[in-house]
Amino acid sequence: VSAGVRRSALDEAAAPDGLWFPIDLASDPALGGMVATNTGGARMLRHGDVRRRLLGLEAVVADDELSVLDDLTTLRKDNTGPGPSSWFVGSCGALGVVTRVAVELEHLPVERACALIAPSGPAATLRVLRAVESGLGPLLSAFEVMSHAATEAALDTVDGLHRPFPGPLPELVVLAEADGPIGTADILERVVAALADGDVADAVLAPPEEAWALRHSITEGLARRGVVVGFDVSVPRSELVGFRADARRLVADALPRATVADFGHWGDGGVHCNLVFPADAPPDGSERALARQLVFGCAVDDHRGSYSAEHGIGPHNADWWRRVTPAANRRAIRTLRDRFDPDRVLGHPGLPF
Amino acid sequence: VSAGVRRSALDEAAAPDGLWFPIDLASDPALGGMVATNTGGARMLRHGDVRRRLLGLEAVVADDELSVLDDLTTLRKDNTGPGPSSWFVGSCGALGVVTRVAVELEHLPVERACALIAPSGPAATLRVLRAVESGLGPLLSAFEVMSHAATEAALDTVDGLHRPFPGPLPELVVLAEADGPIGTADILERVVAALADGDVADAVLAPPEEAWALRHSITEGLARRGVVVGFDVSVPRSELVGFRADARRLVADALPRATVADFGHWGDGGVHCNLVFPADAPPDGSERALARQLVFGCAVDDHRGSYSAEHGIGPHNADWWRRVTPAANRRAIRTLRDRFDPDRVLGHPGLPF
Repeated sequence: VSAGVRRSALDEAAAPDGLWFPIDLASDPALGGMVATNTGGARMLRHGDVRRRLLGLEAVVADDELSVLDDLTTLRKDNTGPGPSSWFVGSCGALGVVTRVAVELEHLPVERACALIAPSGPAATLRVLRAVESGLGPLLSAFEVMSHAATEAALDTVDGLHRPFPGPLPELVVLAEADGPIGTADILERVVAALADGDVADAVLAPPEEAWALRHSITEGLARRGVVVGFDVSVPRSELVGFRADARRLVADALPRATVADFGHWGDGGVHCNLVFPADAPPDGSERALARQLVFGCAVDDHRGSYSAEHGIGPHNADWWRRVTPAANRRAIRTLRDRFDPDRVLGHPGLPF
Repeated sequence: VSAGVRRSALDEAAAPDGLWFPIDLASDPALGGMVATNTGGARMLRHGDVRRRLLGLEAVVADDELSVLDDLTTLRKDNTGPGPSSWFVGSCGALGVVTRVAVELEHLPVERACALIAPSGPAATLRVLRAVESGLGPLLSAFEVMSHAATEAALDTVDGLHRPFPGPLPELVVLAEADGPIGTADILERVVAALADGDVADAVLAPPEEAWALRHSITEGLARRGVVVGFDVSVPRSELVGFRADARRLVADALPRATVADFGHWGDGGVHCNLVFPADAPPDGSERALARQLVFGCAVDDHRGSYSAEHGIGPHNADWWRRVTPAANRRAIRTLRDRFDPDRVLGHPGLPF
């Protein structure tokens, strides 16, 4: 399809055939933009990111001839040498204008079920992840974790949400989703019931709309709480607990006006590490820079993570790209850019490559 | 891990943690070779090919400095600009020597079940594929189709195999596999029982080892039947029936000594289109060239397919690469090769890029 088509329009066109494009985002970008930033979304642990679902594309590059690279296959299995399609995934618009894309769709889910789980603590959350993952196998379609601060902000400020558990909100709330054939909900119920007592303080099955309404209200809830400075980072799953504790400590010490309200895709190691400042005492430029320094440093230097889990490179993290990317890689990437965009007319002017 | 590690050694090392690398091939290549050819294997429709499972890699290129490109992340979600890892996938060894790779593993299957199905004909086979795919959803892990000639060669010449059905062998035999949590076998049984009567002449559940023994004996069976000239092509799934009929007709007309014994991964559109010549009247060079011309032409020109589903580019299909790859793509690929291998010391000397 044309790269200007939005995700929602593709889903609408595919629905009569019982199909959808399962890179599921809260926003509704055009497919070309999704290629440029290699979006993943909330169901990436099951359905992959754009790199994993792209079959082929067509792009126009800014060389002397304005060459059109036509690599628009719709075959799932095609290995006819190194192809240009993959070069454009995550390229942040710097190598060419993606004009058409072919992506792999999925059958619409037949039966979808969700559980909301209160693990007994952060370390138990990782044990719950492993138990749910091995218990559900390929049926697991999302594993989201929401901090107390994030959940509370949504529940307190957004109408129509249900409190997940009768008692006080736990430190972390897990949203685990399964979808698959008829029988999926029964399997999820069995897997949740089999979780170790010591790891779980509370667990309920919840209608998917209700569970996701809570998850998707966090951004709005935090915005109503104050001024949000957001970071989308990732770390190896085994580092999630340590990253979270360290980031909170660093922010509490250096930016005591800020609250860390994190949430994210623990199944992939992705964390939205958002800092909320009081609306009447918003952060200035140097505090924003310090926040970035603390969170990125904690993810990259202390926990083997990435300063950009999903948003590519732009002016706000260009300095981190220069610092983290090995010199040989930087030179190699510039070779491609010199070939496809010698006059640097493509992409954001602040791009570092 | 080191790119010299073989698939089987990785699986052995991962097994104590309940994990495996699910790109499942009949052969046992090193991981670096799997990157260079982007292997997919028999369970690709569920687990993807190397491109979809590669997290990062390290490669040495043949520029003046013998640069090491270190892009060896183990993060699942990491979008820090265009990275060199993807450039090497399917590069046929022409851009550098892959020295280390990081790949995404899977939990070992908890419950695996297989069905052998005799569809009422080729068109019904595609309807069975769609029904099994939507009925099993993410539990479907393989959908293999074996022609009468391929199945018969295996059953007649390889010891210890079970005939799938009591009566005569059908034109096509389907091996459908599901794996997932406890309960998977019941779901497969239900889905197979619900297949349309008109589409299915026979269907049985079979122990996975028994079903795969038949599938994996085809190559040996065909080799015992005569001299095999093999092609690994792919077409859109909707073209599988037409491709198959046309290829048989073309070969019968032009190479009447040959039998087409096809089998493959219909779930991905992949077809091993193998021609078997009598052992006492093997094909000469011009007959081999004609066979290639017929099969590749039928796949590419007549059915929008690929002349290389899984084996990359080598001296035997370099001419097809030159013919099919658009000029702008060829130039773009040579830009990369000029940068990384200016003296053309890497890869097979017959490579066309």
